[in-house]
Amino acid sequence: MLLHEIEELRKIRREWKGLKVGLVPTMGALHQGHLSLIKKAKESCDKVVVSVFVNPIQFGPSEDYNQYPRTLDKDYELCTQAGVDIVFAPSPEVMYGKGQRLSNDNLTYVCPPFFYVNKLCGKSRTGHFDGVCTVVLKLFNIVQPDFGFFGQKDAQQAVIIKKMVRDLNVPVEIVECPIVREESGLALSSRNKYLSDEGREDALVLSKILKNIKACYRKGITDIGVLKETAYGFLTDKHDLEYLEIFDKDTLEEKEKADDNSRVFIACRVEGVRLIDNICLGGE
Amino acid sequence: MLLHEIEELRKIRREWKGLKVGLVPTMGALHQGHLSLIKKAKESCDKVVVSVFVNPIQFGPSEDYNQYPRTLDKDYELCTQAGVDIVFAPSPEVMYGKGQRLSNDNLTYVCPPFFYVNKLCGKSRTGHFDGVCTVVLKLFNIVQPDFGFFGQKDAQQAVIIKKMVRDLNVPVEIVECPIVREESGLALSSRNKYLSDEGREDALVLSKILKNIKACYRKGITDIGVLKETAYGFLTDKHDLEYLEIFDKDTLEEKEKADDNSRVFIACRVEGVRLIDNICLGGE
Repeated sequence: MLLHEIEELRKIRREWKGLKVGLVPTMGALHQGHLSLIKKAKESCDKVVVSVFVNPIQFGPSEDYNQYPRTLDKDYELCTQAGVDIVFAPSPEVMYGKGQRLSNDNLTYVCPPFFYVNKLCGKSRTGHFDGVCTVVLKLFNIVQPDFGFFGQKDAQQAVIIKKMVRDLNVPVEIVECPIVREESGLALSSRNKYLSDEGREDALVLSKILKNIKACYRKGITDIGVLKETAYGFLTDKHDLEYLEIFDKDTLEEKEKADDNSRVFIACRVEGVRLIDNICLGGE
Repeated sequence: MLLHEIEELRKIRREWKGLKVGLVPTMGALHQGHLSLIKKAKESCDKVVVSVFVNPIQFGPSEDYNQYPRTLDKDYELCTQAGVDIVFAPSPEVMYGKGQRLSNDNLTYVCPPFFYVNKLCGKSRTGHFDGVCTVVLKLFNIVQPDFGFFGQKDAQQAVIIKKMVRDLNVPVEIVECPIVREESGLALSSRNKYLSDEGREDALVLSKILKNIKACYRKGITDIGVLKETAYGFLTDKHDLEYLEIFDKDTLEEKEKADDNSRVFIACRVEGVRLIDNICLGGE
């Protein structure tokens, strides 16, 4: 079922009293990564809601809000095939009110802690995670799921959402699912659509750098500086590296030495497209 | 029943499935104002929870967090007499975690819009309403009430809470209850305990100013400047006026002329004690 209005959803949600409900929040342009979240949700829940909403307040003024791929018909078809019960695709007006200016001058925001935000993607994307937490909390309040499903691809986002849930006592259990990759190693992303064939080749550098760092770590190298330096052999003038960091996977704290709880995070532009990827040095 | 732990409360809450639950959030030191909220909650709900929590993150560093009156035994007795089902009195550690520094560097905050915050009490109490919204949302998430009861005494707070509920789609209905006054006109407040007998006399100036402005408005004066000027005849060197404003009661916007939707807000220190009061120029 495809729903656009909050009240329609709330009405059905009330009828689901006592059932286990899972929410998979997405911005649409669904790919196998999203479908792996949906599959996980189907396995553990009685009812599954997928939200499809390109959230304006998590995009900066110079970012790709307008170009972001919107493929609702296709998304709905994929969801139906996957056994999703409700696809919730509200308009910005439904989510934020008609004629509202979308700023912290006149909207209530959920603001995750500076320590978690002032690094990695949050460093270059001011306000991004405020926008993410705000919309995720709204969706949680609208759908009232028992479980929320998030991909490891956006690892900083997953850490921040889990922190929000703890800090605000949100009665939702967060389930994280592993990154889905093409055979080439490229992490699936809706933004891969922006890449040319050549760009897709150049984009492999992200997963190659991560895989190589993990291999070096497994050989016994734990010095963070040394591990990071191994990346430079992979980079060419096609790559505009934004960050390469090794932090604690749960707290995003810097480490003296890499260990099994470390995660390597990378962001790099290829053909002007901002791509991210990450890998855990231990098992996930 | 007196509970201190979140899990104990959640367990009982689950047993209340299908019942209408009301939450009266308080900082304790209960007086007739709180009891009027509890009475209202009892009338409209099957189960009533009163939270008693002096919330550290809504006090500024120079404010009265440590001196704030704590009278849990008395509060619990009053609640029991009033038929409250659960008094929830968590410690700061239960609410914010052990050893957590309480700052936006490491806690997720709910931040109401600047427009609603940068005036009245919010102007002198930086971060106050962030702290209020954060703890109220936490309590809503813990108790999961159908209704939340708030006093008109803290009128700016009530506007901001209602805005938060709308903006974040919080599934709680906010019920506002009128200010309770002593026969003298003094609005009840836990902070009245700080006043000497003489101070209580001097404190009557707040309600006198408000009553007089309403009388002037009823006589046809709608000029905001003129209405505000009527206050100065009441003030002596015992009064340290912080603000006197006339705003729209729902949006906190400035008005060209006073009307029935206007509210007069006053804050004034007497004997160093910060007192607030307000009145609606129309019916409530």
